[in-house]
Amino acid sequence: MAAAPLAVSLGDPAGIGPELIAEAWSQRGSLDLPPFAVIGGAGVLVEAARSRGIELPVAAISEPAETAAMFDKALPVLGTVNGVYTPGEKSSAGAQLALASLEAACALTVEGKAGAVITMPVAKSQLAAVGFTHPGQTEFVAAACGVAAADAVMMLAGPSLRAVPLTVHCSLADVPHLLTTDLIVRKGRVVARALERDFGIQTPRLALCGLNPHAGEDGRMGDEEQRIIAPAIARLVEEGIAATGPHPADALFAHRARETYDVALAMYHDQALIPLKALDFDEGVNVTLGLPIVRTSPDHGTAFPIAGKGLADPGATISAIRMAAACAARRQAARG
Amino acid sequence: MAAAPLAVSLGDPAGIGPELIAEAWSQRGSLDLPPFAVIGGAGVLVEAARSRGIELPVAAISEPAETAAMFDKALPVLGTVNGVYTPGEKSSAGAQLALASLEAACALTVEGKAGAVITMPVAKSQLAAVGFTHPGQTEFVAAACGVAAADAVMMLAGPSLRAVPLTVHCSLADVPHLLTTDLIVRKGRVVARALERDFGIQTPRLALCGLNPHAGEDGRMGDEEQRIIAPAIARLVEEGIAATGPHPADALFAHRARETYDVALAMYHDQALIPLKALDFDEGVNVTLGLPIVRTSPDHGTAFPIAGKGLADPGATISAIRMAAACAARRQAARG
Repeated sequence: MAAAPLAVSLGDPAGIGPELIAEAWSQRGSLDLPPFAVIGGAGVLVEAARSRGIELPVAAISEPAETAAMFDKALPVLGTVNGVYTPGEKSSAGAQLALASLEAACALTVEGKAGAVITMPVAKSQLAAVGFTHPGQTEFVAAACGVAAADAVMMLAGPSLRAVPLTVHCSLADVPHLLTTDLIVRKGRVVARALERDFGIQTPRLALCGLNPHAGEDGRMGDEEQRIIAPAIARLVEEGIAATGPHPADALFAHRARETYDVALAMYHDQALIPLKALDFDEGVNVTLGLPIVRTSPDHGTAFPIAGKGLADPGATISAIRMAAACAARRQAARG
Repeated sequence: MAAAPLAVSLGDPAGIGPELIAEAWSQRGSLDLPPFAVIGGAGVLVEAARSRGIELPVAAISEPAETAAMFDKALPVLGTVNGVYTPGEKSSAGAQLALASLEAACALTVEGKAGAVITMPVAKSQLAAVGFTHPGQTEFVAAACGVAAADAVMMLAGPSLRAVPLTVHCSLADVPHLLTTDLIVRKGRVVARALERDFGIQTPRLALCGLNPHAGEDGRMGDEEQRIIAPAIARLVEEGIAATGPHPADALFAHRARETYDVALAMYHDQALIPLKALDFDEGVNVTLGLPIVRTSPDHGTAFPIAGKGLADPGATISAIRMAAACAARRQAARG
């Protein structure tokens, strides 16, 4: 059975999403990219492509199954939602278009008509203004799949590093209170299973960061390592998961240290995102682990200030497309 | 007037310090290193060199001024303190030797007999056991110079990045309480002056990190940016210092962002150390800003587990020696 095509949501039409989709499609041959269809925004895509000097042929399709046959000649676009936009200018209409595209792309994937969904960047504040109640797309996708937000785990992956922040969008002052042994165990399990199922890593090695400098130096600078993190590691190990730590976070991302694990589990947002972006800025993929569907995203925002200027780097989008296809293929193979 | 020689403290004799000094000396010709003398530990150095296959000639000297004449033929060693050691095994005797060497190296530099001091890594817990009351060598050197610890600022510098943690050895939970506008302004001034005086950067560009993810997103995830950091930046700018921010920390260390500043000011230890070690692990130098003397150090620890095995990378030590010489030369030139 041929792989189901990939569904790509447009992202905010005034951001860099549409031009990066067009750029990826234009390189489909040289990069041997798997077939993907965009949900809506045909006119937006053509205009965005033009800003990068690309004359983009689009092909209206009515079912994802038509994607593969069209993909070589034109960018398949499913559905007629569309809009006008000015690069860099947020608007309610743009947010509504982004939301409609996201909803449809997820629904197609949940229904199995698409093999995976790649979500392009949205403007969260603008989306909230049109009634979007989720903190971000990750939580939206989890809800669309009927999965509790706590079990949908964000992983950032680049050529140098995979990293998971165990707490995400909260103030730094709240991190010590939000971290619990249960949270770490619950998310650690999701990570281990997903690396095995979706990334083909047998017995993935999880390296857990400490929270404090030098992982607390035996309790001299904070006791969360002893009180919260070490017990979580012990429980994961009891379950047969190859978890180690708590490691001093500053040393864990150095090049030789990175060879000793498959994924780093960070205690807070910047502990994961700083090394990922320092090392792999233009190629970072955000992938949601623990879902019944495969979902990836380029790990950058709408970048309104550079939209329409031909400056945005398509690396992360291309990596997100490739990773989605690879994960989906592994799941399909496992199903036989 | 010829530059004063550099004084190198031995570090813990059972750590990797002595072997790295020997390795640096053995490469003095090919790397064109400036003359340096080690304070004590002649026998330790010879043994450590042997573990790397280096037959090290040492020359006992009685004054730093004898260094330059000897340096080409032998490693100058000043003073007779010495000891026996086993690589990797901490001991009180080793800590006492490390401390004696550190004290003498700093004293010679404060007296102006040495142009700068390079301190090799010590084992803090072991030093504390022999009566060392400072949190680390930085605070010891500050005290030796009669400078308040708050005005002696640790900067990490590598080929890719310079970064200063504004809070250092405290738990992560304490960081939000310890950060104040006054602290940021006081340390920001020290950093700006030092980059000008010691690094020859006119109007250095200081990029200040936010504390929270995405620098708090306008107060949605923590208010320290608005309450503490932004007012500090405003005060620094009023004083003519080119300070910017608060910047989202995760994006600030990506390669293009790094071109926009001369030094990043981080709000806590790992915010500075994670990117520095991810990018420049084997070449990171720890330099103390704001002192009447020049002091650098390789940015790594004693690494007891690999001591004596020929595995330790001399890159950071060599960079620390070079940086000390360059900073000392700028100060000497400024004095005329």
